[in-house]
Amino acid sequence: MSAHTSNQALIDYTLHLADSSLIMAQRSSEWCGHGPVLEQDIAITNISLDLLGQARHFYQYAAGLINQSADHTLKPATEDSLAYLRDERAFKNLLLTELPKGDWAQTILKHFFFSVYQSLLYTRLQTVPDKDLAAIAAKSLKEVAYHVKWSSEWVIRLGDGTAESHQRMLTAIEELWPYTGEMFRAADYETGMVDPSTLHAGWLKEVQDVFAEATLPMSSESVYMHVGGKTGLHTENLGYMLAELQYLQRAYPGAEW
Amino acid sequence: MSAHTSNQALIDYTLHLADSSLIMAQRSSEWCGHGPVLEQDIAITNISLDLLGQARHFYQYAAGLINQSADHTLKPATEDSLAYLRDERAFKNLLLTELPKGDWAQTILKHFFFSVYQSLLYTRLQTVPDKDLAAIAAKSLKEVAYHVKWSSEWVIRLGDGTAESHQRMLTAIEELWPYTGEMFRAADYETGMVDPSTLHAGWLKEVQDVFAEATLPMSSESVYMHVGGKTGLHTENLGYMLAELQYLQRAYPGAEW
Repeated sequence: MSAHTSNQALIDYTLHLADSSLIMAQRSSEWCGHGPVLEQDIAITNISLDLLGQARHFYQYAAGLINQSADHTLKPATEDSLAYLRDERAFKNLLLTELPKGDWAQTILKHFFFSVYQSLLYTRLQTVPDKDLAAIAAKSLKEVAYHVKWSSEWVIRLGDGTAESHQRMLTAIEELWPYTGEMFRAADYETGMVDPSTLHAGWLKEVQDVFAEATLPMSSESVYMHVGGKTGLHTENLGYMLAELQYLQRAYPGAEW
Repeated sequence: MSAHTSNQALIDYTLHLADSSLIMAQRSSEWCGHGPVLEQDIAITNISLDLLGQARHFYQYAAGLINQSADHTLKPATEDSLAYLRDERAFKNLLLTELPKGDWAQTILKHFFFSVYQSLLYTRLQTVPDKDLAAIAAKSLKEVAYHVKWSSEWVIRLGDGTAESHQRMLTAIEELWPYTGEMFRAADYETGMVDPSTLHAGWLKEVQDVFAEATLPMSSESVYMHVGGKTGLHTENLGYMLAELQYLQRAYPGAEW
């Protein structure tokens, strides 16, 4: 692998991490000011802010790498240009993060699947040779640990709750499970970083433990899994999200209004 | 004043404080996920969360008072029923808080006017005989001090900034100033609590100091001032906001979805 290719892979990997956090935050922020209960509204908004903060750190690092690189197409990059001015095909977020927010059960389950994955990934990422990525991962882990705790408690509360909440969790599992496989299938740019396939067993174990307490059944690992997000092949949902997210910067370049 | 009247006044006063914080938070949350710059998006969302937290404390206290009172029309009250199930005419927020979010200059100026007022009010409120209100005020003051600092810095940055940012601040002053008088004109239920008219001079002094540094002119104190919010007479803006805020609970009573 040439130095250039290696640098491009590192940029892509960093953008992948940033994009997943950004899109997860953006989707969750749809609850902001619209939640049915004040307490939940505040909790989910706080989690969105944590994810947005993580995304900013990754974007800032990626912007520095891009500005030092031989590729001039994205220069000069800033955290804002990377969030607001890239096209859908350039986004590398997991498909799971861009799915419609759905009801509260779907939001909870999505956060549970994602934050357990993030906690395993960041635990490993904090030991990679790249000091900057390792530092961001280490800094983020405390937040992610809270997200895992918060979403696990909700999965249990809803799964082992009323007949309706249990049924809603079953529906959420059916809809989201086919998007969990992508987390553990490596994209090219993940070579040399944390191999996500090595996180799979640990993730299944944690999900299984919480599902058991929530009286929820585990899904089969052999169902068809959707992939593509990591390499820019997205569902139609992302286009609508970016239209909203990027509207101001696209309409009024450089505007702070 | 009979014990009953006095209790009703305390409930109304507490709801007034809660409503102003809630509506201020709700309006600010419109930036959540839609800001033009990631950093501002995060800051304004954090401030919204602080205000929402204050609103919750006041609503929880009001709910307790209502549930112990002779007035059965609102029972059983909870923080959520008070936020999500009261009609526009029952809301007692300042008109300033319900004005459209406008551009960034208007958002900044509104937060500056409101947080300077809150800091003066809560400083006094923490010494009233009612221990619960005093405790909420004391707890909120640290957050409010940050809001004052944050918004003051932005007023100076925009006022003493580019020609465009200065002009936008002038427009914002023109639009918001006529809504500042209401903060200092006492409603009946404020009798026996903090007299807001005694906060006016201190507020003008702080605004003047920051405006001077921001190279912005002070407005006349004799312009026509809009009032009514404190007693439930609102602009058309509040109806639209409540429609959005209260939609889920109105459409699906008791729903957590």
